[in-house]
Formats: sequence, structure tokens, C-alpha cells
Amino acid sequence: MTFKVRNEAYANLVSENFSRQNLMKTLGAELAHIAPGEISIAMPYSRDFCQQNGFLHAGAISSIADSANGYAALTLCEADMDVLAVEFKINLLAPAKAPRFLAEGRVLRPGRTLTVCMAHVYGLDGSERIAVATMLSTLIHRPISTAR
Amino acid sequence: MTFKVRNEAYANLVSENFSRQNLMKTLGAELAHIAPGEISIAMPYSRDFCQQNGFLHAGAISSIADSANGYAALTLCEADMDVLAVEFKINLLAPAKAPRFLAEGRVLRPGRTLTVCMAHVYGLDGSERIAVATMLSTLIHRPISTAR
Amino acid sequence: MTFKVRNEAYANLVSENFSRQNLMKTLGAELAHIAPGEISIAMPYSRDFCQQNGFLHAGAISSIADSANGYAALTLCEADMDVLAVEFKINLLAPAKAPRFLAEGRVLRPGRTLTVCMAHVYGLDGSERIAVATMLSTLIHRPISTAR
Amino acid sequence: MTFKVRNEAYANLVSENFSRQNLMKTLGAELAHIAPGEISIAMPYSRDFCQQNGFLHAGAISSIADSANGYAALTLCEADMDVLAVEFKINLLAPAKAPRFLAEGRVLRPGRTLTVCMAHVYGLDGSERIAVATMLSTLIHRPISTAR
Repeated sequence: MTFKVRNEAYANLVSENFSRQNLMKTLGAELAHIAPGEISIAMPYSRDFCQQNGFLHAGAISSIADSANGYAALTLCEADMDVLAVEFKINLLAPAKAPRFLAEGRVLRPGRTLTVCMAHVYGLDGSERIAVATMLSTLIHRPISTAR
Repeated sequence: MTFKVRNEAYANLVSENFSRQNLMKTLGAELAHIAPGEISIAMPYSRDFCQQNGFLHAGAISSIADSANGYAALTLCEADMDVLAVEFKINLLAPAKAPRFLAEGRVLRPGRTLTVCMAHVYGLDGSERIAVATMLSTLIHRPISTAR
Repeated sequence: MTFKVRNEAYANLVSENFSRQNLMKTLGAELAHIAPGEISIAMPYSRDFCQQNGFLHAGAISSIADSANGYAALTLCEADMDVLAVEFKINLLAPAKAPRFLAEGRVLRPGRTLTVCMAHVYGLDGSERIAVATMLSTLIHRPISTAR
Repeated sequence: MTFKVRNEAYANLVSENFSRQNLMKTLGAELAHIAPGEISIAMPYSRDFCQQNGFLHAGAISSIADSANGYAALTLCEADMDVLAVEFKINLLAPAKAPRFLAEGRVLRPGRTLTVCMAHVYGLDGSERIAVATMLSTLIHRPISTAR
């Protein structure tokens, strides 16, 4: 699918918005890929965000997958819009233990009011890439003034 | 529904397991209620876990809801079992801006292999209690030795 | 929660709309309860809608749960609006084998654009009532003219 | 991903099992593709399975998507196993109005106890193929004797 870009400055919009997501900073997460309808977010493993067995907590995995999907939707929005998650569902496919994680979010269906996105999260260990989660999200578009 | 307890020491099991969830420590989250089939987890608002508009990030909300559901399931397990989330779905009902948050997890259907739980997350502001999210989760039971 | 009714003729609206849902007719489903924010739909067991083991197929269960949630949302809408499901998630809690089934849908969060609903589906056998499924749905409101 | 087949007679197993799903017969649905980890199910449009605006009801869409995911999981099972849906989530992407529909189910993560599958449902109109829904499912494997 080729996506229609409504705001040529989408990469700036995403970067600026991402820099205001304090949770991403707290997790050490970074934007790894920005393209129309596609965002990847990387984060390192840290014991601070783990569950009882030393795997990354599903909440941490969800955080980067949710943001990847949100920003994937934002790349296709008008300049004065923001995007909020309405809901998401995540399947945890394997224990999240790897030195690094990558969430790849992609627009499945762009819309005027709602956008649907899918993210795959991988554990990265050297050249190995293990699928740890898949998220399906619904996002709503809001004028920036009302979203804040 | 009245739940059948298989491990009289369930409260100790939950507390000990919770103390090993580093993400809960990082979020400042605490066990607020422990009963058969029911767990509540409280956490304070913090800018460190926010999204771009100063609301608590959906990933932080998901973290306490997922743990509340997981520990609610654990209260009904045998002594030598652990519980892992297979998947969950969360609806975000209102912006998460309040001084304090409470996730109330409850078993919907206890099982031998799988348990289904529901959590409601509230923003607490003085005597006000605003529903901010609802999560429906599927959890799998594993012997402790294989879960780690 | 007490719901605000915006259309005093909500029961007529629901009944008229329901009578146009051919799938409900095909399933032998009927409106069993209509109140602000609440709809119940009943259907008999039939081998025609079963899966391989003689249980009602998850798709049939989903049909009445989805409609119950949709009409629960519709009870709170303006007169000239229709409601469409954006997405739903269903947990199947027990094999669906009973003479009769009841889906109870209820609004969890009413909204102007989106409404979130939850449905519980029960198998009814004499005085017994067994939970067979739980559904969490997101619905969008559309002016009738554009929804058709 | 290449899938490991544990039962060389998987195609027979799927066909035989499918022939016992009465709902598929009722919907006029047919197996359109059988391969390891992949199943497609086709069904014609019919007014009997529609919602109020003449679109195929989300419950009918869910029925073929759920079965496609279930049989995709079954292709990778041992000979004496059956598969039951634990839960699924579906996003409805566009109004389901087309002469024919195709649900393509695919295994996302095969497992011993649980398998995760994804299905995409398309409306087919001549050479056009419009995405109408995406489903993410969790399925459990059961020995045939206990599943019935």
C-alpha cells in the first residue's frame, strides 16, 4: 500500500512530538525509522522495566508498540492534528529477553477520523530477530488544540 | 462469583512475586488490595511516564492493569505455579490525568491452563474516581521452573 | 452509572433498526431487554450455527454480542444517528452448548464520536446461567445518511 | 516463516473438520486454500447475513475469519488434536459490501499449547480486492477426545 502524505513536514512533526513523550525518554527509546505510514522505535533491555522473571514487562513492550502505531498514524495526518490511542490488543508471542527491542508500527487502514495500525515487536540479539509481540491498534485524530 | 483458593499462602506469593517486578518499582506502584481473584495496584502520577500532552502514557496504564490481572489470576493458582499474560486488549476511556491511579483486576473465568481477567483503571482525584481504561486479559499458568 | 438519553424514542429506534438486521432474523435472535445504555438479545441453540463439536460457533456468539453492544450504544444516540462497530474483542469462556443464549450489552463509556460497550453472553439451561463469552467493543456514531 | 508439519494428512483433517462446521454450510462458505499454516475461506454475499444497512454483519465476517484462523492452526497440529478459539479481536476496516468475501488466515506463532493467528478479510468485486477486516486470534490445542 502506498500512503498519501498530507503534511510534507511529517518527520519533523513526529520527532518533535516524540521528544515530548517522557515515557519514551524514561525507557531509553529512540525513533529508528520514519516513513509515510511507518515508524520504528528501538529500546535497550533494562532490568528496571522487567517482570518477575527478568523478561521485559508486557507494559514496556506495549509502550513502544503503542507509540510506534501512534506515530505511524501521525505521519499521514494534517499538520494541525494529533493522534490518540482509542484501544489496542497485544499478543505476547515469546519471552522478551534480548539486548535490544524494536517495535515496527505500520498503518493498516488510514482514515479521516480513525486509523488502524499494526505493530510487530522483535527482540534483537546480534543478527537474530525474534518476534516477541504483535499489536493491533485503533487511533483517533484530534485537532491539536482539543487533544491537549 | 466465589473463587476457590488452592494455595492458602496466596497473599504471600503475590507480595513476593510483585516485589520482583522491577517495572512496578520503577513506576512507584504498590499493591493496594489482595483477595481471592482480586488485586488492586495503585500508582502516583509522574511526568516521567507521560505521553506528549501530559497524560499518563497508555503503556503505563497498561502496565498496572496487566499486573493487576496477572496477580488476580495468581491468587487462585497452586503454590508452585506462575502466571504469564498471553494477550490483552485495553480500551482507553478518558485522558489519564489525575494525582493517583488505581487498577482493579478481577478473575472473570478461572481455569487450569488459562485464566481470563478484567481490569478497570481509575484516576483518583480527592473523592473523585474517573474510569480511564478497561482491560480484558488472557493468562497462562506455568510451573515456576519453566516460567523463568 | 446513569445514562443521559438524547432521543426519547430510543426503544422504537432500536426495534426498527433491529428488524432490518437480517442476520438476527436468520439466527432466530430477539430483543429481550431495552433500556438506556442496555440491550439484551436472546437466541435459541441451533445445529445450523455450530462448529465441529456441536457447540455454537464463536461467530454466532459474536453476532449477538456485537449487536447487543451496538444497540446499547444506539439507545444513547441522537435520533438521526446510526452506530457501526469499529472493532471488538471477545473471550470465549466455556463451550457454547445450551438450549438458549443471552447476550447482555451495556455501555461502558458513552461518547459523542465513539462509545465503548461490554457484553456478557450466557448459556441458559433451565435456571442455570453459564457465562460463555465476554466482548469489549468500540463503536462509532454516524449520521444515518452517511452510514447507509 | 516456514512451518513444521506434524501431520502429513493435514489437508484431509482440515477438510473433514470443516465439513462438520454447520455454520460454514449455512453461510455458503468454502475452503479456498489449504497449506501449512495457511487457510483461506470464501463466502458469497447474502442478504440473510447482513446488518441494517445491507453490509455483511460483523458476526458473519468474524465467522469466516475465526474459522480461517482455527484451521490455519490445525494444519500444524498432531493428528489427534483439535483447536478451539480462546479469544479474538477484529478491526472492521470498511463496509462489507461485495459479491464475494475471502478470509485469509495465517499462523503468526505456532505453539504446543497455544497458537496465534492473523486473518485478513477482503471483499472481492471483479478484479478488485478491498480489505474489510483484520483479526488477531489465540487458539488452544486439545486432544480430540476432550474437545468434543
